[in-house]
Amino acid sequence: MSEPEPEAAADPRNLRRADFVVLRALPTRWSDDDTYGHVNNVVHYSLFDTAVNGWLIEASGVDIRSLAAVGLVVETSCRYFSELRFPEVVTAGLALQRLGTSSVAYRLALFGAGEQPAAVGRFVHVYVDRSTRRTVPIPQAIRTTLALLG
Amino acid sequence: MSEPEPEAAADPRNLRRADFVVLRALPTRWSDDDTYGHVNNVVHYSLFDTAVNGWLIEASGVDIRSLAAVGLVVETSCRYFSELRFPEVVTAGLALQRLGTSSVAYRLALFGAGEQPAAVGRFVHVYVDRSTRRTVPIPQAIRTTLALLG
Amino acid sequence: MSEPEPEAAADPRNLRRADFVVLRALPTRWSDDDTYGHVNNVVHYSLFDTAVNGWLIEASGVDIRSLAAVGLVVETSCRYFSELRFPEVVTAGLALQRLGTSSVAYRLALFGAGEQPAAVGRFVHVYVDRSTRRTVPIPQAIRTTLALLG
Amino acid sequence: MSEPEPEAAADPRNLRRADFVVLRALPTRWSDDDTYGHVNNVVHYSLFDTAVNGWLIEASGVDIRSLAAVGLVVETSCRYFSELRFPEVVTAGLALQRLGTSSVAYRLALFGAGEQPAAVGRFVHVYVDRSTRRTVPIPQAIRTTLALLG
Repeated sequence: MSEPEPEAAADPRNLRRADFVVLRALPTRWSDDDTYGHVNNVVHYSLFDTAVNGWLIEASGVDIRSLAAVGLVVETSCRYFSELRFPEVVTAGLALQRLGTSSVAYRLALFGAGEQPAAVGRFVHVYVDRSTRRTVPIPQAIRTTLALLG
Repeated sequence: MSEPEPEAAADPRNLRRADFVVLRALPTRWSDDDTYGHVNNVVHYSLFDTAVNGWLIEASGVDIRSLAAVGLVVETSCRYFSELRFPEVVTAGLALQRLGTSSVAYRLALFGAGEQPAAVGRFVHVYVDRSTRRTVPIPQAIRTTLALLG
Repeated sequence: MSEPEPEAAADPRNLRRADFVVLRALPTRWSDDDTYGHVNNVVHYSLFDTAVNGWLIEASGVDIRSLAAVGLVVETSCRYFSELRFPEVVTAGLALQRLGTSSVAYRLALFGAGEQPAAVGRFVHVYVDRSTRRTVPIPQAIRTTLALLG
Repeated sequence: MSEPEPEAAADPRNLRRADFVVLRALPTRWSDDDTYGHVNNVVHYSLFDTAVNGWLIEASGVDIRSLAAVGLVVETSCRYFSELRFPEVVTAGLALQRLGTSSVAYRLALFGAGEQPAAVGRFVHVYVDRSTRRTVPIPQAIRTTLALLG
């Protein structure tokens, strides 16, 4: 919200799977569908959360939950372009939007059957000391992993 | 994301309960807390969803799910300022950010114990025909209710 | 499943609010309703969890999550008698079914608008040492609180 | 709860993947882990729900949600033997426990890394007319599919 997003403002609907360095398959669940028979808007954030943290854990080989610094979510957003529905397997695309000293912003897209994204979002982690909750630099293990995002 | 938000850009942390026409009490649940022992970032959107739709149903006296036009969520966002924790009862503040012909944008805030909001967000409904999913004007029953937001 | 439940076997549909020492109001959420337009069967367990732990925290005056022994759920069950629907406020009834040295079994009921329960269930905590996960006696603060259930 | 379960009573911990005709991979999500750092007891039911309905949709080739009769959940239960944790991929085992005229009871198990089940449960659908909610025979498309469970 607070930063310019030129390429997204261009039109995030034009993003394709090939625009994302990391792609992860995330199956939907029966209870994801709400009273309108489609995946509830809340679930998209659960998929974002899962894509980012699942990738960090696997790509770093480190249990990020046991580090002295943990990533707290300080901002998220999503634009929804088309409906998803159980039992669809969603493909989440993950890219680096901005890397700072203590924070990292990811661009995320969720793809259903089609070529166009069903949703595009943003997810920002700020690293804090687990105990004091004070902002600290991104841990080296995480920073090394983020370099894989180019 | 696509629209200027001058007053929020000013600083959403300055929003107070008194800035919201509608306030709703939303208790947290045990499973809202994640592995870091605080309400997971996804849950905030479930509270937004619940605040908006719960208020629409009660204030309109209409079961909005049975109208010919239904509100689909096309955009949401949230900024997180402080942690919430079960069994906290959250107060959701609801305000009108922008009212169009077919869409309505709400500003939402979630308050915990303190005076400052724990989170501030945005939630946009576009009304579509239940069957064709084509954009239609906001139903009169909803529009009348939205007028209560000033 | 492993124990006789004579009084429930009698017919849990006959349980009434008055049969429960503790009653707690638990509002439903928009996303609780699934594709069939009613509260999804999974949500009932979230309400059980919330009723038990919320009551334990409030009635004991202790943050049960910081005790040396924590209650792990080892068995749950639910029978569903009628449908619940957002924005219904559910009343959860909580009673003691069986109190052992290390474990406690709760009987729970969820009431909607009517006199009969919409669902009746069972929820069993076994207390374990937070670190070793070995079974330990129920902490005194919890045991004193459970005495309130009669 | 109301029926004898001789083989389970024997000891459900002895169930193995090979005891289930259908096995389905169900990845966990970040928000599945609760404040104790393991998959919350509620999530197991979401996995049961997803395994049963996902399998029914795929194996029948029919969108079960559009049939004149739909399966309502009338009873579920679960026993928890060991902890699961994100990003574990759970394997759900699905077997037929009892097939009646209008209802079907499934036995389910969730396997993590080990040979023993992390949890074993029961899930009962009763088929009702979508509109009247009156009990009806299991639809032929479902019954044919259930025959695959042996």
